[in-house]
Amino acid sequence: MISREQHDRMANAIRFLSMDAIEKANSGHPGLPMGAADVATVLFSRYLKVDPKTPLWPDRDRFVLSAGHGSMLLYSLLYLTGYEDMSIEDLRQFRQLGSKTAGHPEYGHAAGIETTTGPLGQGLANAVGMAIAERRLREEFGSELQDHFTYVLCGDGCLMEGVSQEAIALAGHLKLNRLVLFWDDNRITIDGAVSLADSTDQIMRFKAVRWNTIEIDGHDPDAIAAAIEAAQKSERPTFIACRTVIGFGAPNKAGTHKVHGSPLGVEEIAATRKALHWEAEAFVVPADILDDWRGAGSRSVAQRKAWEGRLAAAAADRKSEFTRRFAGTLPSDLDASITAYKKTLAGKPPVVATRKASEDVLEVINGALPEMLGGSADLTPSNNTKTSQMASITPTDFSGRYVHWGVREHGMAAAMNGIALHGGLIPYSGGFMIFSDYCRPSIRLAALMGVRVIHVLTHDSIGVGEDGPTHEPVEHMAALRAIPNLLMFRPADAVETAECWQMALKQRHRPSGLALSRQNLSPVRLSHEAQNLCARGAYELIAADEAKVSIFASGSEVELAVKAAADLTDKGIAARVVSVPCFELFAEQPAAYRASLIGNTPVKIAVEAAIRQGWDCFIGRDGDFVGMQSFGASGPGKDLFRHFGITVEAIVAVALGKLPPASVA
Amino acid sequence: MISREQHDRMANAIRFLSMDAIEKANSGHPGLPMGAADVATVLFSRYLKVDPKTPLWPDRDRFVLSAGHGSMLLYSLLYLTGYEDMSIEDLRQFRQLGSKTAGHPEYGHAAGIETTTGPLGQGLANAVGMAIAERRLREEFGSELQDHFTYVLCGDGCLMEGVSQEAIALAGHLKLNRLVLFWDDNRITIDGAVSLADSTDQIMRFKAVRWNTIEIDGHDPDAIAAAIEAAQKSERPTFIACRTVIGFGAPNKAGTHKVHGSPLGVEEIAATRKALHWEAEAFVVPADILDDWRGAGSRSVAQRKAWEGRLAAAAADRKSEFTRRFAGTLPSDLDASITAYKKTLAGKPPVVATRKASEDVLEVINGALPEMLGGSADLTPSNNTKTSQMASITPTDFSGRYVHWGVREHGMAAAMNGIALHGGLIPYSGGFMIFSDYCRPSIRLAALMGVRVIHVLTHDSIGVGEDGPTHEPVEHMAALRAIPNLLMFRPADAVETAECWQMALKQRHRPSGLALSRQNLSPVRLSHEAQNLCARGAYELIAADEAKVSIFASGSEVELAVKAAADLTDKGIAARVVSVPCFELFAEQPAAYRASLIGNTPVKIAVEAAIRQGWDCFIGRDGDFVGMQSFGASGPGKDLFRHFGITVEAIVAVALGKLPPASVA
Repeated sequence: MISREQHDRMANAIRFLSMDAIEKANSGHPGLPMGAADVATVLFSRYLKVDPKTPLWPDRDRFVLSAGHGSMLLYSLLYLTGYEDMSIEDLRQFRQLGSKTAGHPEYGHAAGIETTTGPLGQGLANAVGMAIAERRLREEFGSELQDHFTYVLCGDGCLMEGVSQEAIALAGHLKLNRLVLFWDDNRITIDGAVSLADSTDQIMRFKAVRWNTIEIDGHDPDAIAAAIEAAQKSERPTFIACRTVIGFGAPNKAGTHKVHGSPLGVEEIAATRKALHWEAEAFVVPADILDDWRGAGSRSVAQRKAWEGRLAAAAADRKSEFTRRFAGTLPSDLDASITAYKKTLAGKPPVVATRKASEDVLEVINGALPEMLGGSADLTPSNNTKTSQMASITPTDFSGRYVHWGVREHGMAAAMNGIALHGGLIPYSGGFMIFSDYCRPSIRLAALMGVRVIHVLTHDSIGVGEDGPTHEPVEHMAALRAIPNLLMFRPADAVETAECWQMALKQRHRPSGLALSRQNLSPVRLSHEAQNLCARGAYELIAADEAKVSIFASGSEVELAVKAAADLTDKGIAARVVSVPCFELFAEQPAAYRASLIGNTPVKIAVEAAIRQGWDCFIGRDGDFVGMQSFGASGPGKDLFRHFGITVEAIVAVALGKLPPASVA
Repeated sequence: MISREQHDRMANAIRFLSMDAIEKANSGHPGLPMGAADVATVLFSRYLKVDPKTPLWPDRDRFVLSAGHGSMLLYSLLYLTGYEDMSIEDLRQFRQLGSKTAGHPEYGHAAGIETTTGPLGQGLANAVGMAIAERRLREEFGSELQDHFTYVLCGDGCLMEGVSQEAIALAGHLKLNRLVLFWDDNRITIDGAVSLADSTDQIMRFKAVRWNTIEIDGHDPDAIAAAIEAAQKSERPTFIACRTVIGFGAPNKAGTHKVHGSPLGVEEIAATRKALHWEAEAFVVPADILDDWRGAGSRSVAQRKAWEGRLAAAAADRKSEFTRRFAGTLPSDLDASITAYKKTLAGKPPVVATRKASEDVLEVINGALPEMLGGSADLTPSNNTKTSQMASITPTDFSGRYVHWGVREHGMAAAMNGIALHGGLIPYSGGFMIFSDYCRPSIRLAALMGVRVIHVLTHDSIGVGEDGPTHEPVEHMAALRAIPNLLMFRPADAVETAECWQMALKQRHRPSGLALSRQNLSPVRLSHEAQNLCARGAYELIAADEAKVSIFASGSEVELAVKAAADLTDKGIAARVVSVPCFELFAEQPAAYRASLIGNTPVKIAVEAAIRQGWDCFIGRDGDFVGMQSFGASGPGKDLFRHFGITVEAIVAVALGKLPPASVA
């Protein structure tokens, strides 16, 4: 049992480590770590089920600091509870280049950082995904192997962000009762009092989405403990509103926005030391307090060992499956299944939209990979994401593998990140490509963290047709290709769609997006190749001796390129076609392959029903581009392709216009 | 007084026009127009203050169809109430290329379409902006000139989107009591029942953000009327939950998701004709019903005339100011003010961050332009957006011109679109550039609609420093430049910042973004030029005879380019520098200017602390780029520039590496 005095000193250890590190860095946010130290101390010293020496224990509780600017709270806790790769020296290196202790918590920098946070609202939505993963895996593997809580700490900023509102509505709907959200209710934001911009009754707001709600004094350890215990017994997710004082303990600045985002300064730190009766020097935690913390950190070792015993005792196939799933490795027969599926297409390649081709190969993948967790942001019949294996998850039944995310693209993408971070599952989404804009902050974070989430982005161009420019991606391929570490695929037919899915699944540490057509496409890969040609990002689809023209195209425009090449050949002009399903994989190929694929034909044309940006790396500044220069329009898709000049005739005309007359036969 | 029978027939006119147009197009969404026809009929026939013959009357009520897929509801209403540019032929052309009647309502296609909707949640947030504009202008010009309501119709999808949650929280906080939201509560989404994905108690949810709430049967005209009258008297924004049947009237499909997004089919339409006792042929509205509708449409002519009388009687300066403001023209002395301001910088150009330079020129602009309405998403002290003229708007006092948007970037951007669409004001935001991702859907819509909103995007690169990669834009310039019709400015110093602001203000029909540095920058424009050099998008900052090297740079990297050019010159290599504050304006220059500015030096180098994508249009595929290839990192900004190799030395090394040895003196 931790006495009140012990508690206070343990919490103060967080406060001083935070103040001192921020002061040393001359940069950072002391307000939250000081204000939320009591909540964190009770949670980490008495309830959080983790073992710092086995930080990746699959059944650990997850803790997410959604208010990522308060990163020193988390770093202090990791050090204090005994995570081996968080030393006092790491705390001294706060916010320095190359340190583990970045300005905001960065996933992968140190064990115990469960997700990258900072962009507000994201962590909360990640946590919803983690709770979904836990609930789903508990259903699959039983509570002997999966039975943990997900705790989140957020501030006012997180709650004002729309993404958090989407996430909490879904969490309430799905009755994710292992999810506990602490709200650091300090009533201060950067501009000043929260009341400058918000009058929300947060308790009522959470009740409206079916959460259990509790209000406490966030500096009262007993109240905090009682709230956590009540939350653990709830049948609904629990919102614990913790009334706190930002910068608690700083005699002159506490309770004001001055402590939010700037170092306290030497004088105020000295005053705080006095006020909190803290005599230790900077970065020194008195031995007895460190002992208390380390003891608290090792609280769950026995539980971890018992869990390991249960895993060891599990049936061999269940054990190996569980282990494989958390290792993130794919079943060895996946490649063979996809190759076999490709073989079924040979000779009778279907004329289908790539969204439908995606459904067909997903039928194979979802059959082979029980870790696939699908879903759609209320566009299931349009995204073709629900294969025969995908029963719907409901609030009372998690035996299914398909989430109806509602019209919540952003919440979906952020929760998918949480699912992937949790481990054991590979989430894929369904959405219109245009709405990748709604989920962009979460897609970026997936790329930054390097997690395997797969976004199925259908309706990928003006081929959308009648729904018009609000639903027609034009700049989205370019804008998504711009995100580092994200693979964007735009397959041309059923074979390429299968190959692109295969490549996306193989990215253990990268997210992918698949841009898929609404409209039917003629196949371009007519013969069977066991090899995955899309694996190199771009490949020669049609070769030509002494080619004068190279046509580079992706997705729905590859069939136009193929027809244009045939027309040109008929006119005596040798033309080759390069299919470009993935810029990023192409960029990773050896220079020789890239140079030879790009080639030296006098005419280079790129074709994509989107803007030119990015294509110059294939065709150069002097190359030609057949694509979009503006937003789309509303009308039948075929009319739009004609109207915007993305046609076989346009490609042929560009080539003819560019070739010196002599070269035309 | 409209009898119940008249009402029913008027509502059915909407239903049949919608059904018939969707059937003819073989594409569209009949469910909402049929389900919401009663609500719309009561509103448009009895309450909405508009004059179809004077559709741009500044004091008209605004009506926003946030559920934009129900576009035929709006088109039918515009035709029925007598808007001259919405004929029956236009309805027949529904969803055809070039028609006014696009798949979703497109601003600018026809009078009476107050905003472009379709991406869910946006219209509702636009309407919050319109209500802010009305309230602010009422404060400024008095209720003789501004005194109207803003009505919105939304569905479940809008309410699930996070952006709408941000917007309603702000509307409740600001007590926007002229805002009335109808919720078409039909309990159906594309995937099926709303209950698949949501359990929200919407009434409680709106009460939690301080709205007035009313629940009614959405097919009962008396109840609808009573609700509107109660809303008009409310001191808070009002949420009217209208229980409806989707596809009301279709005997076999009403109440199911089958009527949401597909034509009903010939048989079901015939059955609906029978069920609703409607004998007119397709696209024919019986004369008596059309008369009733046209009469309803001209209801407010007297009010419009009285308003015109009040405007005519107003004091000359007040009248001319009001007229100028709604015409969207700038005061003629703005240019002179900015030139005079630039002159004050000459000779003593300050070393400042461009965010600070922006504040300084905004001080001039906000003094000259009373239509400027500023704000920040809770980053006021970091964005430097609050100049001396900008008192804060509060729920009870709209005499200020500054909105504390809260941590709601998306809601802010969407509401800004509404403010610009309303007329009379020019909204500008404040936010971190990284969070442009959060507002991207709204920025895109601003560009699609062509409205003048200006986004101040500070902290524009790894210069952010310690906050780390979650807060450092890397791909954002490229991703924003990808949006058609959006101007992205990245000024290099105080002079360029003033020039870029001037250009942004001059875009009557385009949105702009200003990417501004957190860190201090050395000035690059040392002498005074009255001319706005940024107006051409890119210009030669440093010329050199027989230059061997051209260095193209934007923003904070221009000073590096200038120093590198000096170093190269010292080494005997003539180097010129081109400052590139705005790609889009440059692309609009005559070909000769573009070609000569790009030039033919053997070495071309682009420098931007961001990814290369897009720069090939200056340097070509074989040019060199000094910038980012990955996400950023956490550390002092100067360390990061060194770490990522964005330095004077790196630029010089690239040039030396590329030049044939003989050319080096």
